[in-house]
Amino acid sequence: MNNKIEPTILPGFMELLPEDQIAFNRILRIIKQTYELFGFSPIDTPVIEKTDILLAKAEGETEKQIYRFKKGDNDLALRFDLTVPLARYVAQKYNDLTFPFKRYQIGKAWRGEKSQKGRYREFYQCDFDIIDNKELDLTNDAEIIAIIYSVFKKLNFGDFVIKINNKKILNNFLKNLELSNKSTEILRIIDKLSKIGEQKVEKELQKLEIEQDKIGKIFEFIKKSKLDENLDGAEDLKQVLNLIKKMGVSDNNIKIDFSIVRGQDYYTGIVYETFLKDYTEIGCICGGGRYDNLAECYTDKKFPGVGASIGLTRLFSQLKIKNKKSTPAKVLVVSLIDDLTFPLEVANKLRLAKIKAQTYFDNSVKIKKKFTYANKLGIPFVVVIGDEEVKTNKITLKNMKTGKQNLISIDEAVKMIKSKNT
Amino acid sequence: MNNKIEPTILPGFMELLPEDQIAFNRILRIIKQTYELFGFSPIDTPVIEKTDILLAKAEGETEKQIYRFKKGDNDLALRFDLTVPLARYVAQKYNDLTFPFKRYQIGKAWRGEKSQKGRYREFYQCDFDIIDNKELDLTNDAEIIAIIYSVFKKLNFGDFVIKINNKKILNNFLKNLELSNKSTEILRIIDKLSKIGEQKVEKELQKLEIEQDKIGKIFEFIKKSKLDENLDGAEDLKQVLNLIKKMGVSDNNIKIDFSIVRGQDYYTGIVYETFLKDYTEIGCICGGGRYDNLAECYTDKKFPGVGASIGLTRLFSQLKIKNKKSTPAKVLVVSLIDDLTFPLEVANKLRLAKIKAQTYFDNSVKIKKKFTYANKLGIPFVVVIGDEEVKTNKITLKNMKTGKQNLISIDEAVKMIKSKNT
Repeated sequence: MNNKIEPTILPGFMELLPEDQIAFNRILRIIKQTYELFGFSPIDTPVIEKTDILLAKAEGETEKQIYRFKKGDNDLALRFDLTVPLARYVAQKYNDLTFPFKRYQIGKAWRGEKSQKGRYREFYQCDFDIIDNKELDLTNDAEIIAIIYSVFKKLNFGDFVIKINNKKILNNFLKNLELSNKSTEILRIIDKLSKIGEQKVEKELQKLEIEQDKIGKIFEFIKKSKLDENLDGAEDLKQVLNLIKKMGVSDNNIKIDFSIVRGQDYYTGIVYETFLKDYTEIGCICGGGRYDNLAECYTDKKFPGVGASIGLTRLFSQLKIKNKKSTPAKVLVVSLIDDLTFPLEVANKLRLAKIKAQTYFDNSVKIKKKFTYANKLGIPFVVVIGDEEVKTNKITLKNMKTGKQNLISIDEAVKMIKSKNT
Repeated sequence: MNNKIEPTILPGFMELLPEDQIAFNRILRIIKQTYELFGFSPIDTPVIEKTDILLAKAEGETEKQIYRFKKGDNDLALRFDLTVPLARYVAQKYNDLTFPFKRYQIGKAWRGEKSQKGRYREFYQCDFDIIDNKELDLTNDAEIIAIIYSVFKKLNFGDFVIKINNKKILNNFLKNLELSNKSTEILRIIDKLSKIGEQKVEKELQKLEIEQDKIGKIFEFIKKSKLDENLDGAEDLKQVLNLIKKMGVSDNNIKIDFSIVRGQDYYTGIVYETFLKDYTEIGCICGGGRYDNLAECYTDKKFPGVGASIGLTRLFSQLKIKNKKSTPAKVLVVSLIDDLTFPLEVANKLRLAKIKAQTYFDNSVKIKKKFTYANKLGIPFVVVIGDEEVKTNKITLKNMKTGKQNLISIDEAVKMIKSKNT
């Protein structure tokens, strides 16, 4: 075997070193636990779906991007989001589901986009939705926002803002300007405001042959974003704002913004996007809202819903401060003696106390190298066991940060390891 | 939109209803937590790899089975296990890894096998391995077995047996029978013993033109599986058995079995397979062992290792007793009044106490239907809030199993919900 194949992965695919993976998984866990705390059920759909299912509603761009292939006679593709699989899942299984159906799904999706900074071809989506087989009331919209708030509070990535709107407000405003026939295009252009800025948005609106004074009125309306009572759609938005307050969402993290419209036609009511104040360059990290009909491509039944999604891969890739305390274990157990009876007993007891404990026994490796190993992995404590420890039924616990070590009982060691904020 | 696309998935792909998904995820979590308790780091590799990387060592059967496709000029495929990606990962990143490298990976893999009962085209593998850039001592083999033991003790699927062998023992026995030149083929045939039985194995051995008395000796040797001291390889196996005992592994769950050889040439030393006694039809649910060189296709560097893998999808599909207590929440909060201030406060407090709490407020839905909803989802408690509750700052907690309900404080409710083994 002399012809080695160069070990590489494709561009646009994120693959982390273990310490970063631990930090990534910590974020995943917080998101998952929060969804579960609100009683959402997990689902897990196949990565591969039939292409006609996936593309039922997709536009040209998506069709170009998907990873598509034949296997036997089947035309298959990798899912490009988690919403289409949810729609198919609900349409297929509604007889066996209990409504309102509160589900979350965390998994990868794939789009063969042009490779560029912060864009990934394989990426995690963290979706959660409430689907019903009849109309959902506004408490559901509020709950989705409360969950987003709860997630980003716990993630602790600094200050964040959830920008909220009701698409009906802008639609009605456009109706009053006699622009209803162009409202879909206008909303798509306005959706780009935070990315491309006012000047470019203005130019694109001009291309739609909208009169300059109407463009001016649109900008003015958006800039004010004032919840005037006689605006159609304002009452719903007010109710939701009132509810989320009662759910413990702080006013400081909420902003009404009429320019938030979510690009897709798909959304029909209250919509929201979340931004991290310290990471404006990332843009929207969590978007969602209300939709009238989830599964119209697959069934005549109507399934309205409300939900949101966190794009974790891109978010993680831009975080400046990863968790520096990432370590696979709290303690490393090493032995100076050949009989491993006591050292193994100690490792067992630490694990029974729910302490993540690694062992490194190989006695062809010097103790110094084992300390270096612990330091490299960021393991905060090393337990050393020699003849003295066996004799006294105690262990030597070394704090790798301070360098201090103590001969103590296992119980004392458990307390010490757990008491540290490591 | 009248032409609906029929919502289906491909045969051979497992997709669960929410209650089963909760049970599945519970198993996943136990496996993951056990790997982490032993200090193993998570890694997560791309689902899509370059085909030449994936097929570097694969045989014809695998090549036929993989999901392979072109994207632009790239020849790509979905991973068919987690071992090849690990090999590529280590060969690519060894400079940034700390050895011994203890990693786990839980994820899906794909093989387009013929669809048949209990065989899936998309399946979860739960792998954990210890890789070093120098030789690993036997404490590592023992640790892998101790982890397997720990996982299946916690999973509580009934009695199980870990069958252990050292491939060197059988290889040396075959050498003494002057069958070394056929040992690879012989081991592959013996590997099928538990699946196809003695008669068919005998026939296959006869096809290799092995004399009948030697076949008899092989069978006798395997049946006895006696750790004779002068067998080459017996000493290592004894040491490992001694070590796992000290790690707390019960003798009752361990059996020496010289017929356990793991099909692949890949394995070179101690090997093991785990079987559930109540599910003999599933066969091996966790296999693993020692290998000399992980990444030889990608690098000249030598990376010996030891590890094992649990095939979770097939295992789960055959379990008769799924977790009947699967529920997304411990409590459902409902309100008889329109002002949700107090009900939302209650839900918040329950969640702060780490109780999974769903809300169902929509007041166009009758309370009776909400109780039915809780029962369908297996939610054991419902909190009902009306005027009386607001006035007294208490809540009505209904136990859905007994039907009893009490007007109590939130703190008392927290205690009651937590005290139940639900």
